Amino acid sequence: MAHANEPRFTFGLWTVGNPGRDPFGDAVRPAADPVDTVRRLAELGVYGVSFHDDDLVPPGSTGVERDRIVKRFRQALDETGMAVPMATTNLFHRPVFKEGAFTANDPEVRRLAVAKTMDAIDLGVELGAEVYVLWGGREGCEVDAAKPVADALDRYAEAVDLLCDYVAERGYDLRFALEPKPNEPRGDILLPTVGHALGFIEHLQRPDMVGLNPEFAHETMSGLSFHHAIGQALWAEKLFHIDLNAQRTGKYDQDFRFGSEGIKDAFFTVRLLESSGWDGMRHFDAHPYRTEGEQGVWDFARGCMRTYRLLAEAAARFDADPEVQEAMVVARVPDLATPTAVGDGGPEAIRAHARTIDEPTLAAAHYGNERLDQLVVEHLLGAR
Amino acid sequence: MAHANEPRFTFGLWTVGNPGRDPFGDAVRPAADPVDTVRRLAELGVYGVSFHDDDLVPPGSTGVERDRIVKRFRQALDETGMAVPMATTNLFHRPVFKEGAFTANDPEVRRLAVAKTMDAIDLGVELGAEVYVLWGGREGCEVDAAKPVADALDRYAEAVDLLCDYVAERGYDLRFALEPKPNEPRGDILLPTVGHALGFIEHLQRPDMVGLNPEFAHETMSGLSFHHAIGQALWAEKLFHIDLNAQRTGKYDQDFRFGSEGIKDAFFTVRLLESSGWDGMRHFDAHPYRTEGEQGVWDFARGCMRTYRLLAEAAARFDADPEVQEAMVVARVPDLATPTAVGDGGPEAIRAHARTIDEPTLAAAHYGNERLDQLVVEHLLGAR
Amino acid sequence: MAHANEPRFTFGLWTVGNPGRDPFGDAVRPAADPVDTVRRLAELGVYGVSFHDDDLVPPGSTGVERDRIVKRFRQALDETGMAVPMATTNLFHRPVFKEGAFTANDPEVRRLAVAKTMDAIDLGVELGAEVYVLWGGREGCEVDAAKPVADALDRYAEAVDLLCDYVAERGYDLRFALEPKPNEPRGDILLPTVGHALGFIEHLQRPDMVGLNPEFAHETMSGLSFHHAIGQALWAEKLFHIDLNAQRTGKYDQDFRFGSEGIKDAFFTVRLLESSGWDGMRHFDAHPYRTEGEQGVWDFARGCMRTYRLLAEAAARFDADPEVQEAMVVARVPDLATPTAVGDGGPEAIRAHARTIDEPTLAAAHYGNERLDQLVVEHLLGAR
Amino acid sequence: MAHANEPRFTFGLWTVGNPGRDPFGDAVRPAADPVDTVRRLAELGVYGVSFHDDDLVPPGSTGVERDRIVKRFRQALDETGMAVPMATTNLFHRPVFKEGAFTANDPEVRRLAVAKTMDAIDLGVELGAEVYVLWGGREGCEVDAAKPVADALDRYAEAVDLLCDYVAERGYDLRFALEPKPNEPRGDILLPTVGHALGFIEHLQRPDMVGLNPEFAHETMSGLSFHHAIGQALWAEKLFHIDLNAQRTGKYDQDFRFGSEGIKDAFFTVRLLESSGWDGMRHFDAHPYRTEGEQGVWDFARGCMRTYRLLAEAAARFDADPEVQEAMVVARVPDLATPTAVGDGGPEAIRAHARTIDEPTLAAAHYGNERLDQLVVEHLLGAR
Repeated sequence: MAHANEPRFTFGLWTVGNPGRDPFGDAVRPAADPVDTVRRLAELGVYGVSFHDDDLVPPGSTGVERDRIVKRFRQALDETGMAVPMATTNLFHRPVFKEGAFTANDPEVRRLAVAKTMDAIDLGVELGAEVYVLWGGREGCEVDAAKPVADALDRYAEAVDLLCDYVAERGYDLRFALEPKPNEPRGDILLPTVGHALGFIEHLQRPDMVGLNPEFAHETMSGLSFHHAIGQALWAEKLFHIDLNAQRTGKYDQDFRFGSEGIKDAFFTVRLLESSGWDGMRHFDAHPYRTEGEQGVWDFARGCMRTYRLLAEAAARFDADPEVQEAMVVARVPDLATPTAVGDGGPEAIRAHARTIDEPTLAAAHYGNERLDQLVVEHLLGAR
Repeated sequence: MAHANEPRFTFGLWTVGNPGRDPFGDAVRPAADPVDTVRRLAELGVYGVSFHDDDLVPPGSTGVERDRIVKRFRQALDETGMAVPMATTNLFHRPVFKEGAFTANDPEVRRLAVAKTMDAIDLGVELGAEVYVLWGGREGCEVDAAKPVADALDRYAEAVDLLCDYVAERGYDLRFALEPKPNEPRGDILLPTVGHALGFIEHLQRPDMVGLNPEFAHETMSGLSFHHAIGQALWAEKLFHIDLNAQRTGKYDQDFRFGSEGIKDAFFTVRLLESSGWDGMRHFDAHPYRTEGEQGVWDFARGCMRTYRLLAEAAARFDADPEVQEAMVVARVPDLATPTAVGDGGPEAIRAHARTIDEPTLAAAHYGNERLDQLVVEHLLGAR
Repeated sequence: MAHANEPRFTFGLWTVGNPGRDPFGDAVRPAADPVDTVRRLAELGVYGVSFHDDDLVPPGSTGVERDRIVKRFRQALDETGMAVPMATTNLFHRPVFKEGAFTANDPEVRRLAVAKTMDAIDLGVELGAEVYVLWGGREGCEVDAAKPVADALDRYAEAVDLLCDYVAERGYDLRFALEPKPNEPRGDILLPTVGHALGFIEHLQRPDMVGLNPEFAHETMSGLSFHHAIGQALWAEKLFHIDLNAQRTGKYDQDFRFGSEGIKDAFFTVRLLESSGWDGMRHFDAHPYRTEGEQGVWDFARGCMRTYRLLAEAAARFDADPEVQEAMVVARVPDLATPTAVGDGGPEAIRAHARTIDEPTLAAAHYGNERLDQLVVEHLLGAR
Repeated sequence: MAHANEPRFTFGLWTVGNPGRDPFGDAVRPAADPVDTVRRLAELGVYGVSFHDDDLVPPGSTGVERDRIVKRFRQALDETGMAVPMATTNLFHRPVFKEGAFTANDPEVRRLAVAKTMDAIDLGVELGAEVYVLWGGREGCEVDAAKPVADALDRYAEAVDLLCDYVAERGYDLRFALEPKPNEPRGDILLPTVGHALGFIEHLQRPDMVGLNPEFAHETMSGLSFHHAIGQALWAEKLFHIDLNAQRTGKYDQDFRFGSEGIKDAFFTVRLLESSGWDGMRHFDAHPYRTEGEQGVWDFARGCMRTYRLLAEAAARFDADPEVQEAMVVARVPDLATPTAVGDGGPEAIRAHARTIDEPTLAAAHYGNERLDQLVVEHLLGAR
């Protein structure tokens, strides 16, 4: 596999700016100034930043205040050369969204959510965003009787269709990326996995404008393989953005430093991103532990990028190792690209051919997967 | 919600016929004769049976043996009036499929799998099947390096496309239903959830011929809501079949008696099936505990159906309860069917309207979900 | 089994007083006045309340303020007849405890935690508490390198020993109850399950003073059976207190209304508590959904109690049902109380006896567990 | 931390001898001859083997056959210098144990289980075993109504007490190690975690003779930290044996090659074992993938040992790295060994001291955990 050039790393303002509040504890760090964040990240070699509308412009700001904030922020971007490849909307923090946003039972709440997103899209586009992430953290329920799924999906699709219309009407060069999550903060969230979002998109009016923003932690919470999720999203040509972090299965949403948990799945994810030629941002959506102060925040940011690079190097070494290549042949990996069809024939040609196959001989084949996986582990551990 | 008539129950031959072997223990019951199974299930009021090819015709049977077996089986069906609404193929037991079937790395294994399925389709159609289930239990891997996801999905789609071609060429009246599962017997299985399969179908050549066979246990293993999965499948018009059983999250595939675990999710599933007018089979894919002998096997089958009926009755009572209906209004459930769009307007009309909304008032609304869910619990417990 | 009299229900001040903040959202309800809470709960027939020190006396209060608050609170207790059977300390909210409390790496933090607990014990005892709960929510880590387990357990034991000394020196009539939890807010918490805490207690200097406060949600998060946990705690005579709520496996700490999830496990828990003669409080540690206002808060509280009573009634009906009793005999349940020893003999007597056993006959026995469990389900559903 | 000498590796006969049967598939490899296994493992530098009674002596063998088998096996041990440090009993495969073994409801089944274990102990001791593992795979239930927990724990304790008596009467130099597991093959297994077994042991008549055999996969299934489990077992001086393998959380029992999943937890486990001076066997209880033939079986065995050694080396490098040592000081790790007590004082001395602490200053401390954990990751990846 060919491996790509230097990856472009981005961070959300809310990641290094996270004050460390959790369900059982108070903030441990002061709120960060977005302009400071941009400057510090630029010093670390970061390519760009992303934000929720409220991260940059506090809710309730007047138009004048908004413009002043945006001007100052843009100045920092200009000075540092930082980009804003992605933006998003906060539709989860304010009490008005407690019962849902795009799928709230009350139409007025839904209208507020759509309008807030339109404003936030304007803000994102103004700062250069080309991808707009929609994370429906409140789109779900604890009480199934209160949320008929078909109606909720109708409303979800309606909202995304409206936003696509808006972007098309405005002539913005912007695509949407849905971010699936199985639960937390709701008992069950609609579009819980990459798969559910892929299926949903096909029912939209402008499916080409909508893709995915898979997050490592979110798929891993359910015990699903993130690498497989990315594989299917790439196969469907729907990987528009990605959220890299770390998580242990079956736990609360941890958003740990990339590579700090699930390192083997992280390795295969990086290998796939680097070898597929995918040219999107390597975006980190994680936050520092509560034990950290300012120094720890930047250690955290550096660590995300450093581990990504180390995994990319390990993946390149792995793919270049002749012993790996031989083990791939033993495992018949190249043959998976061979069609099942026999020549130009259809099903009957396969049936005729299958009569000639000696099943016991075929069943006796061995695939050397223990050796192949041990080579993965040894490359991962830097032992080859 | 309107509730349907008497449900049509079906069982797989392999369910009541399960001999009780598990990863750590030997068989505890003798193999069942399919004809006996048909007769016993008919006595219990079951509508029909399903089978894997190998359940009915032992692998290695000659053509003459096959025909004799099928004739005797059909006779039992005719005598009892039992139907065969669904059939499927065993692509997981024999060692030749240890590395995969439709997505095996070796093309010869894939051809064998496709040909076996074609033969099995003939058998199913001969006995009346209108739905053909494809469970890809071996389509996955423990070793990610051995199974590039994009290639594997290409092969998966190719196999399903070939089978659709076959059915179309033969003029069979048969639709396919993909059965997702996250893991076991493979470390990770491709198309791990209902969502992933919904997304996959859109990439097939004949997407109309292919839908889903969601299984309660399989979604629940990952901690996902089965009721939500069925909701999205119905919304996408892709619920072609269903596998009812019981499971606890984060455990091995348990396939317990329907309703014996996850009873609240089972309640919402039954309520949705009964009120949606869905006319498919209520199919049980479960097996008796290893502690059971013959008596326990039929207790098990009766229990599956009895609990389904009890849940359907509870759901009907729930929906007819005036207090529930009032709580639904408090929870604003009917309003979820109201479009978000303002009149015939597009996004800008929503934006204009949203400026008139008083957010604090809206945020202060209460939805009475504790009361609504308590009504669910009390109806479920038969206390109302 | 005999079933007990009317259960005594208690609630934490922090449960009905929960303002609905979560990791992604702001408070949705105002802070509750403890005196109002006492009055409202008394009206619902609740037996008593529990509290964290900070729930009652805001941190930073002067001695005069504290005394005034306590006086007013006691007055409300006296007027309503409400008891305070349990109290506890908040060692998790304030930033100083971000790295741990009794097991913080910094000895000064540990001293602060112990001293805060001593003050809180005084407060609890002053208001009548006989059980003191220790939940070590911050005793754990995300970074294993930072927290050597043996040292941490030494410090944990030291802190509990110090607190036992304090109680003994003061002559308080107070026992401690450790509350296990596997994770959240820490990546891994020490003493993650009921079992780990049971093992830990044996290493304390005064093991008789220390028992357990198992919580439904906490065991269930790990997929463990809460009913089994309570069974082992009772067997070890260490069930000093209990936290009743609801939770789905493998998710964030949900603390839902008792019985709203995991209802079968809740049924067996209630049956065990009621039939064992255990005379502790039936304490609810749960909180209302964020969708709720004040009305919903009291619906929530009523629902917890109502479902407990319904389950207790179902359990009593179940145990009184002659068909259940017969199924219990078929399942050989009474024989589990028969010793394995043969007469007064030791191992050799068993060996000699075992030579006379016909294994195939024994292996052919059936236990009727499908029928027995179906009887559970039908009693649970109110269908018998 | 000091690190130990060359570890002594052992394998169960059933690990490399596993024929690859799973719940959905047939055997893919022939049964192994135990003598061949001993020879092959010896060639790989393995220190010893362990076995279940039935692995070595097929059930139903006559006394003469048994003696011939044992003689031939011992000869192979003598020739190769291989040891048998541990033995165990198969109380799960035969149908007679389908409802339980030591906790079966039928006393006759329990007597058979105890007698079988006594015979198996004789066999183990004859071949040199000093640790006897008790894995109660069938001690549990799917149907809670059928298995009162207190009675079951009474019977469990009685069986272990009887076996301790037997060993004491015979004068064998043998200790027992209980192996916890949460589920599979039973819905819930008694003593589901290391903690539950630690608590249970304190209620035995000879607690000194009984310790633990924790298994990586079993703790990990429940999402618990294996490293923490080993930490608590060592702290309680109850780590008598260990089962090393790999597993992903919330899935079926995978028993993968050590280090192939959960590599960070494996790193901390190896670091703890090597630095604690624990002198037990490094025992692998895993099995090769079903894709493997004979070559893959030995690749698997080599891989387990190779990864253990690589992790031990990484741990030694980590502990010797001056930057790590400095980060440990920043994280205040050495201070966790400092008592919380102030001088020789008791609780009141701490209270007095705590009044002098300035909480805001203490709360502002930072612990550098991001940097410390990043150092772990970089050492693990071989990047330092």
